[in-house]
Amino acid sequence: MNRQELIQKIFVKKSFLCVGLDPDIRKIPQHLLNEKDPIFTFNKAIIDATAPYCVAYKPNLAFYEALGVKGLAAFERTVEYLRMRYPEHFVIADAKRGDIGNTSEMYARTFFETYNLDALTVAPYMGKDSITPFLGYEGKWVVLLALTSNKGSRDFQLFKNGEGRQLFEQVLIRSQRWGNEANMMYVVGATQGEAFQNIRRYAPNHFLLVPGVGAQGGCLHDVCRYGMTRDCGLLVNSSRGIIYASSNINFADAAAVAARAVQQEMAHELETIDR
Amino acid sequence: MNRQELIQKIFVKKSFLCVGLDPDIRKIPQHLLNEKDPIFTFNKAIIDATAPYCVAYKPNLAFYEALGVKGLAAFERTVEYLRMRYPEHFVIADAKRGDIGNTSEMYARTFFETYNLDALTVAPYMGKDSITPFLGYEGKWVVLLALTSNKGSRDFQLFKNGEGRQLFEQVLIRSQRWGNEANMMYVVGATQGEAFQNIRRYAPNHFLLVPGVGAQGGCLHDVCRYGMTRDCGLLVNSSRGIIYASSNINFADAAAVAARAVQQEMAHELETIDR
Repeated sequence: MNRQELIQKIFVKKSFLCVGLDPDIRKIPQHLLNEKDPIFTFNKAIIDATAPYCVAYKPNLAFYEALGVKGLAAFERTVEYLRMRYPEHFVIADAKRGDIGNTSEMYARTFFETYNLDALTVAPYMGKDSITPFLGYEGKWVVLLALTSNKGSRDFQLFKNGEGRQLFEQVLIRSQRWGNEANMMYVVGATQGEAFQNIRRYAPNHFLLVPGVGAQGGCLHDVCRYGMTRDCGLLVNSSRGIIYASSNINFADAAAVAARAVQQEMAHELETIDR
Repeated sequence: MNRQELIQKIFVKKSFLCVGLDPDIRKIPQHLLNEKDPIFTFNKAIIDATAPYCVAYKPNLAFYEALGVKGLAAFERTVEYLRMRYPEHFVIADAKRGDIGNTSEMYARTFFETYNLDALTVAPYMGKDSITPFLGYEGKWVVLLALTSNKGSRDFQLFKNGEGRQLFEQVLIRSQRWGNEANMMYVVGATQGEAFQNIRRYAPNHFLLVPGVGAQGGCLHDVCRYGMTRDCGLLVNSSRGIIYASSNINFADAAAVAARAVQQEMAHELETIDR
């Protein structure tokens, strides 16, 4: 999905919500454990319930890989289901990959060709040749880690050079030699609050993928206040707050209610944009 | 496997060779494509041929994930085979993971409990809480990316603070607050030559996992000259130079010859250590 299509989708649906599909076998409703493929059954119900309120889905590979071959099969079924039934939704594989060139090329083929996903999260530590193999695909995106939502983000991401430039700023600046607003986004945690102003100095128009609203404590209004652009420029992810809204038999309805509540807050924020 | 056992193994076998199990379906001998599981068949032959000459194996997950569920099944079979037939070998999953705490915990369980591997490569960008979940397992190791072998390593790893300290040095220093010589190693590319001296200033005794000898151009003698310690302190990885030594029917014999040649060079280097 290209940038214009994504922007259009956001304003039509009045939503920039991304639902994180992070199914933990210990947390999903227990009655699903009798199903043949509990993870896929859970995902399918969550997707059907939340699709009207979101523009994107983000399965985190760790939750699937944790279950070995069975988990990866559930991931593949989920992706196939999304592609077949909801081809209008943007799908991000949250994999945080990043390896030497020939290995990144293999990952790019897997995620963009085999699975036909829209985007992949990538860790920047290994530099240019770990990132550029993902940039050659029409309508596909790299979502590069910049300033993450966790406490450990301070350990290295705020490492400062002699002129006071921090590592995450260096990532924003340097990576724009390789990619652009049409094929690269950045991960910026919602917990970073006013740091968004700073991010926008270096990446005024890039889309930002924002985890950390909800369970991790980030505030949607602050994210919009400091991070929103004329084109919206945000995909805000919520995982636990939506998919585990309830653990009883009506979990999918509860997820829909939770997703709709976020979407309505988003509609309100989008109205403030003067287009 | 704990540190003492690893050191002992190295001196008994006169080898600190790690064989990279990076099977690319486009590069393995074509006659294997008729097998039911070509990747596992290839790995099994390579393992049986090289086991006498190496102390470790390092499957890179990307090569398996590239093939989806089938690839992950081949990875699992490979790991089971290693655990059953070669329990004395150190096995590193080259996955370059690193995510927020609860996600890293899932990865730790997968790799250390489900697969019972000895070590996992981890990318440091997300900091402490992405790394510490891997450190609580007796006899298991985090192999943290420090200074990698690829060209892109210069983009961020050499980013310098006001006192001239580079990011990879900050990673070496800061991470020693969380782990120690008995549960943490560092990835340092063989292509970095004299940089090893610098690494040893910050990590005088830690084991280093060294990719980049062979296909990527690193020199074993230089690595030893600048990086070897009294305990050896090195695991040098070779992938393409060994596993693709030949693509004909005798590929396993050719791999054995290539592994033995590296092992003999290593035996020579080990003799220089005064224990």
